[in-house]
Amino acid sequence: MRISIYRKNKTPLFLQIKNQIKEMIVNGELIHGFILPSERELAKKLDVHRNTIIRAYQELKADGLINSTKGQYYSVTYEVFYNQGTMRGKKSRIPWEHLTNQDVSHLNDQLFHESTIPKGISFQGVIPSPDVYPKEEIREIFTELINSKEIDIFSYCSSQGVAVLRSNIAKLLRDRQITATPNEIHIVLETSQVLDYLTKILINPGDGIIVEEPVGPDVYRYLRFRGAKIITIPMDEQGMMTDCLEKLILKYHPKLIYTFPTFHNPTGTVMSLDRRYQLLDCSYQYNIPIIEEDWFFDLRYEGTPIPPLKALDKHKHVIYLDSFAMTFAPGMTFGYVVAPQPIIEKFHSLTAFSLIFVNSLNQYLMSAFIEKGLYEKKIRGLCRYYAEKRDLICTELERAKDLGISYVKPAGGFYVWCRLPDHVNQNALLITAAKMGINFLPGFVFFPHGTKGENYIRLCFSYPSLEQIKQGIGLLLQAISACAQ
Amino acid sequence: MRISIYRKNKTPLFLQIKNQIKEMIVNGELIHGFILPSERELAKKLDVHRNTIIRAYQELKADGLINSTKGQYYSVTYEVFYNQGTMRGKKSRIPWEHLTNQDVSHLNDQLFHESTIPKGISFQGVIPSPDVYPKEEIREIFTELINSKEIDIFSYCSSQGVAVLRSNIAKLLRDRQITATPNEIHIVLETSQVLDYLTKILINPGDGIIVEEPVGPDVYRYLRFRGAKIITIPMDEQGMMTDCLEKLILKYHPKLIYTFPTFHNPTGTVMSLDRRYQLLDCSYQYNIPIIEEDWFFDLRYEGTPIPPLKALDKHKHVIYLDSFAMTFAPGMTFGYVVAPQPIIEKFHSLTAFSLIFVNSLNQYLMSAFIEKGLYEKKIRGLCRYYAEKRDLICTELERAKDLGISYVKPAGGFYVWCRLPDHVNQNALLITAAKMGINFLPGFVFFPHGTKGENYIRLCFSYPSLEQIKQGIGLLLQAISACAQ
Repeated sequence: MRISIYRKNKTPLFLQIKNQIKEMIVNGELIHGFILPSERELAKKLDVHRNTIIRAYQELKADGLINSTKGQYYSVTYEVFYNQGTMRGKKSRIPWEHLTNQDVSHLNDQLFHESTIPKGISFQGVIPSPDVYPKEEIREIFTELINSKEIDIFSYCSSQGVAVLRSNIAKLLRDRQITATPNEIHIVLETSQVLDYLTKILINPGDGIIVEEPVGPDVYRYLRFRGAKIITIPMDEQGMMTDCLEKLILKYHPKLIYTFPTFHNPTGTVMSLDRRYQLLDCSYQYNIPIIEEDWFFDLRYEGTPIPPLKALDKHKHVIYLDSFAMTFAPGMTFGYVVAPQPIIEKFHSLTAFSLIFVNSLNQYLMSAFIEKGLYEKKIRGLCRYYAEKRDLICTELERAKDLGISYVKPAGGFYVWCRLPDHVNQNALLITAAKMGINFLPGFVFFPHGTKGENYIRLCFSYPSLEQIKQGIGLLLQAISACAQ
Repeated sequence: MRISIYRKNKTPLFLQIKNQIKEMIVNGELIHGFILPSERELAKKLDVHRNTIIRAYQELKADGLINSTKGQYYSVTYEVFYNQGTMRGKKSRIPWEHLTNQDVSHLNDQLFHESTIPKGISFQGVIPSPDVYPKEEIREIFTELINSKEIDIFSYCSSQGVAVLRSNIAKLLRDRQITATPNEIHIVLETSQVLDYLTKILINPGDGIIVEEPVGPDVYRYLRFRGAKIITIPMDEQGMMTDCLEKLILKYHPKLIYTFPTFHNPTGTVMSLDRRYQLLDCSYQYNIPIIEEDWFFDLRYEGTPIPPLKALDKHKHVIYLDSFAMTFAPGMTFGYVVAPQPIIEKFHSLTAFSLIFVNSLNQYLMSAFIEKGLYEKKIRGLCRYYAEKRDLICTELERAKDLGISYVKPAGGFYVWCRLPDHVNQNALLITAAKMGINFLPGFVFFPHGTKGENYIRLCFSYPSLEQIKQGIGLLLQAISACAQ
């Protein structure tokens, strides 16, 4: 509702206001039932005394055009009748639920609500700790960016991502021994978007994909959504058991191999260098592309890093996925994919088609964060910070060895993959622990064929404080004792 | 490549460095061909003298593990031989182009490159002017947000969008007489994403959709991509010719009606209130949902606003699309959709599935921008700013009436839809104008069936400066004269 008042005009202000509102009502521009702004609100907006508005509204009320609802608000009571007024009274309802496509309806288990932000003590969500967001650094960078004459954080950028950010990522990747040109990098909102787009680009119903077992539920959800056939390969403490690989390939002729080789989700395992070479060899031998998800690479708390498959790959067989969500601030982060040119072009097309581009501001923030060496520095701090949490959770679990719990202390990442004693009923444990305010993910969600994993739980130690970890594991152990059959 | 040095250790620094690099090479962690950091770079990183690194590298070179490339960089020359070394030499190439799905390949005309940012004098792209970005306001808001204890711009937010932003949008919508609860609003990156998702949710191959003719090419692209049948309805100076609507509905049984009723793309037309009621009546009569795209509503330079269909709709038949790209800063903006609950739930699912969420920072920036009344204020400034551009382009075109050019002066939005003289060859005009550095969109791209529009061009006046508009229209008129047959 827009009203213009002219103070130099001889018509009193209240009448100017009344006349304009009246015209809008009679023309049907303010419709029946429309709630007018409160007297105070409109007075403020037009910079007039409240009494002026009160008088205008009273006149409109006297004309039978508006009335007050519950003594508080005025709403339009006058109704314009058009020729086609016959129809407007008819009850009509569109059966939206039945109009929508079935495949979209199947996505409902994915919802991410504000309420999924952890309550109680949560070992569940893969969420970095707010204690270590680089707030000061972001503040400084923003101040520089907004004053910059060269960098335009306000305008559109390329669908592929800001060029200077892609150059800076290429430099970061050199530290991982990955040689990639900025043209081989595409910026996305999240690694989930990469999985969504990649399966859209590469998968047809019935195509086979080899994945490690266990595997992140998000991964097999994308595959299922495209109708892929999921072929699982077992793991041990050295990662994917690559000696089974050839047999599986010969039997199922898969189109792709998906792997999370470094600080694997959910086990925390690092694939050995030997296995990495074996996997690549199979990929070369049978011409099968590899998708490598690698967003824990920099969060290594001890030992020497093993190069990503992408670094060892000589024939551009590997499509590489990473995200800054765990190492920057998740509310202003994004991910990227490194892939051969024809795949990057498809990403470009898909992004331009739907999203146009991933916003400029956050990309420039991250780019400067890398360029100034703050990322490197931050990583060192994060490793110290999360190592302490890992050490504590392992110390606390260690005390329960006699309960029959076993796990491998992870050298990095956020997970402890815990084997429970055989006699513990997992469903009972979930319920008992939840009642105590403790959350975690049960093992079976990581097994796409749903028949294994009842003996495992995944504990993610990134979010709870040290105190919460200590308290939470204590309670968890009580719950385990209580659920032992 | 991570190296740790211990200054208290008795081993000299250069040797500590050499030994660690050697170990990484021999273990295969630094692979053959890996380029080591420059001496200067590594010295800086480890905070040692450059000579220390030179000495370490010389030792490694003497051991035959690395060599210098072009005298500048050192790279690893030692190669680890694994059992499966036989395969690693084999040439292997994945035929990526043939692996990718055909439907994704069809998207290629969509690319949005950094290079599409206008060069020369452009009347082509729908791009707001950088002169009116609210830079100062954004700077202030950011400073407040980063210091805020209540608002968390750093963490994840809901897939549906930040709650406080959705409340603020609901308040803005009241000015348009639209009553919507925050739950009926979903935040998206762009209105293109809404069209992508809506067609994904509602359209099956063969479904008919009524669209105005002419219509934005992005709209019919989404419809085609889902295999929809595009049914065009003619327009006049009052918008969609709704008296044809019933006949089209009875003949084609369409699933949806799409419309851009206010400052229509490309014609700039505003649908009259009568027509709006007629359209709604048809929608109620035949139970057909309406998609209303409305991102120019606030950019009205004269006259009284006519309420959006969404405001007049009594039965929740209208799905409403808007974006802040034209009124905030496009590099940090997003859009939103207002729709019945079952549709919003699908949007929630689709967003959570692929993108997880649209970043928090930008949403809080915009939310505060609205809450502080800065949006309202900004709009008033924008209307004055763009009205001046519109006036100028119309004045300049007016001078060419004798050339046979005609148009209707738009009351808002960014477009002048120009009818050319009959004897002008449009292709020749495009080429001639482009040579002069003038760009615009030819009329035929707005006609999905491709047989009309040769006599029209769309001039978007938002981006060029006043000087450029004057100069650009002058050149355009020259080009038109030159192309008259």
